[in-house]
Amino acid sequence: MGPIITITTDFGTADGYQAVLEGIIAGINPEARVVNISQEIAPGDIAEGWYMLKTHHYYFPPGTVHLAIVDPGVGSRRKIITVRTRRYQFVAPDNGLLSFIPKKDILSIHSVTNRKYALADISPVFHGRDIMAPAAAYLSRTVDPACLGRSCQKIVDLPGVRPKVTKAGIRGRVLRVDRFGNLITNIDATRVDVSGTVSVNGQDLGSLRLTFSDVRPGKPLAYIGSGSHLEIAVRDGSAFHYFLPAEGDEIQIFVAR
Amino acid sequence: MGPIITITTDFGTADGYQAVLEGIIAGINPEARVVNISQEIAPGDIAEGWYMLKTHHYYFPPGTVHLAIVDPGVGSRRKIITVRTRRYQFVAPDNGLLSFIPKKDILSIHSVTNRKYALADISPVFHGRDIMAPAAAYLSRTVDPACLGRSCQKIVDLPGVRPKVTKAGIRGRVLRVDRFGNLITNIDATRVDVSGTVSVNGQDLGSLRLTFSDVRPGKPLAYIGSGSHLEIAVRDGSAFHYFLPAEGDEIQIFVAR
Amino acid sequence: MGPIITITTDFGTADGYQAVLEGIIAGINPEARVVNISQEIAPGDIAEGWYMLKTHHYYFPPGTVHLAIVDPGVGSRRKIITVRTRRYQFVAPDNGLLSFIPKKDILSIHSVTNRKYALADISPVFHGRDIMAPAAAYLSRTVDPACLGRSCQKIVDLPGVRPKVTKAGIRGRVLRVDRFGNLITNIDATRVDVSGTVSVNGQDLGSLRLTFSDVRPGKPLAYIGSGSHLEIAVRDGSAFHYFLPAEGDEIQIFVAR
Repeated sequence: MGPIITITTDFGTADGYQAVLEGIIAGINPEARVVNISQEIAPGDIAEGWYMLKTHHYYFPPGTVHLAIVDPGVGSRRKIITVRTRRYQFVAPDNGLLSFIPKKDILSIHSVTNRKYALADISPVFHGRDIMAPAAAYLSRTVDPACLGRSCQKIVDLPGVRPKVTKAGIRGRVLRVDRFGNLITNIDATRVDVSGTVSVNGQDLGSLRLTFSDVRPGKPLAYIGSGSHLEIAVRDGSAFHYFLPAEGDEIQIFVAR
Repeated sequence: MGPIITITTDFGTADGYQAVLEGIIAGINPEARVVNISQEIAPGDIAEGWYMLKTHHYYFPPGTVHLAIVDPGVGSRRKIITVRTRRYQFVAPDNGLLSFIPKKDILSIHSVTNRKYALADISPVFHGRDIMAPAAAYLSRTVDPACLGRSCQKIVDLPGVRPKVTKAGIRGRVLRVDRFGNLITNIDATRVDVSGTVSVNGQDLGSLRLTFSDVRPGKPLAYIGSGSHLEIAVRDGSAFHYFLPAEGDEIQIFVAR
Repeated sequence: MGPIITITTDFGTADGYQAVLEGIIAGINPEARVVNISQEIAPGDIAEGWYMLKTHHYYFPPGTVHLAIVDPGVGSRRKIITVRTRRYQFVAPDNGLLSFIPKKDILSIHSVTNRKYALADISPVFHGRDIMAPAAAYLSRTVDPACLGRSCQKIVDLPGVRPKVTKAGIRGRVLRVDRFGNLITNIDATRVDVSGTVSVNGQDLGSLRLTFSDVRPGKPLAYIGSGSHLEIAVRDGSAFHYFLPAEGDEIQIFVAR
């Protein structure tokens, strides 16, 4: 079987926008195999896309090309880039979506500007289809990223996705609510020592639990989720409904030392 | 890699109805590769399916078989057909779903009636599974469409999907609202000269823009969408909510000459 | 093309949880091909997963490995098992999800405990990813199920999914409402003789119909659905809205002899 190209977007699954990427990829590299990570990033929510890719990309075999399109600035002056690490290649708009990649892992960054590797007609509202999907397909055919455009020095960073660490503790926020109503926070357990008492909107949840059955049904708990971030759940229920925020309010997460 | 079969239906993704098509196809042609265009056509909405396939099918490589099932008349006397063009083959109920194919591109039309190329048991409520999916799979194995049934002269047309063109201008309607709240109209920019002033429910949007950033945030614009139809969007917002129609009302689109 | 692995879960499609299974499978068996049956089982609803797999698994070619994860007891003492039949292999938590497999078809049952065939790090909240997906991938590579763990005598049964059969008739319930608003009941037409008069919440629908067009638009009907279970529909409408149950109420299905 050929190389894998994963697709992560905010296109949804109803409109066929993602399917067209698969059609284009199949035309350029018939050996490539597409795996959908998620097309249901909230429209334009770069931080959600950042989390999705950060957490899931590493489960794919070496050689995988990860294509990520959350691109509210399409048609404006933001760049499109490709990043190579030892295990993977990435293609995305340079708007912070790829800023989870540790600097030490990056072998090269190139802008994607060479129209030889894009579709002949480029719609000003769909660069994902006309530029990024073809770029990912050519990279999966082992085209050198230097062919796509100039080398770049760095990736645009994404503000607001890292928690505040102070002497008193760690102050975080909810990045995403998953299907089970679990609150996925921006507190990454592999980078931050999460050993204190967790509170949500001021309500004390005690220290970390291992799994749901460590509390009684209906009770909230804090634990390290499968994506290695601190999560809040309610056993046999929904933490989102339990801590239901008013429209526009943020849920406050705090880990006291 | 083998031939591609795309699937476009109103089955949704929750009920497993589409997955069964993939299972049947894999049994008949293990080399075929399935790509989902959309399973989220509104139930029974032939015009939406028509637009989806019209707009997206051309991004797939030559040789692709497009299977489309929006079939509110299942079990009644409507025909099932297969259409061959220079680049593609199509399988669908003959209810207007395929009427976007230009007559000059059609090499042949055949009805699908030969039970040798269907499942042994045919449910009266699921011809997509028992007749159309097997037909698509056999066609992808290069079975001659003449084996499936008799040659036909023409395809059933779909009323109401083409705009009204008068001396004053073009009067259109919304075919589909996409995930971003963009209004996709039935005005096809490749067939109709769209150079005048666009109005929506009587509100003047001026002439066509190229992309979202051509207007200020929160403002509506008209532009040629990625599917080559006239679309209406609101920058950083939802045109559907902006022009929110009352239940049952249609949004009026007019392009003055 | 390689062996097929189907995936049926309650993960939804938005969170990328299912995609990670595909990544892991591709790493272990690059030849395997994944088909999604449904990721939209209601969270924790084992009966819905049971119906989905019971009804759809048989349309896949012999040799397919069916991976099913609806696992509200993750991290508790429930077992993970693999079941082999003449045509298929199955991997699932042993919580009733697989109890649709007829006893006479079962060649072997094994628990999945050998950590050699799991990921190195096992999250206490995601055994689907860390244990079940790898097991399915190894089985698709023809690893002997006896390598995964000990032989077991039987599968946990699922209470409440079989209808009550009395002298007066058959009393059933709704297992699932599909996208079209059709009510799929737990009355399996291949096991129960369904020849009497059907009533829903006391309303008489007469005897079975063949297809939707057998009643007038807007009228309810009972028929054998494409999954061989008794279903209730409303022609050109939604049976769910027609018989709209109050919150928490069950819809009563009765077939009089």
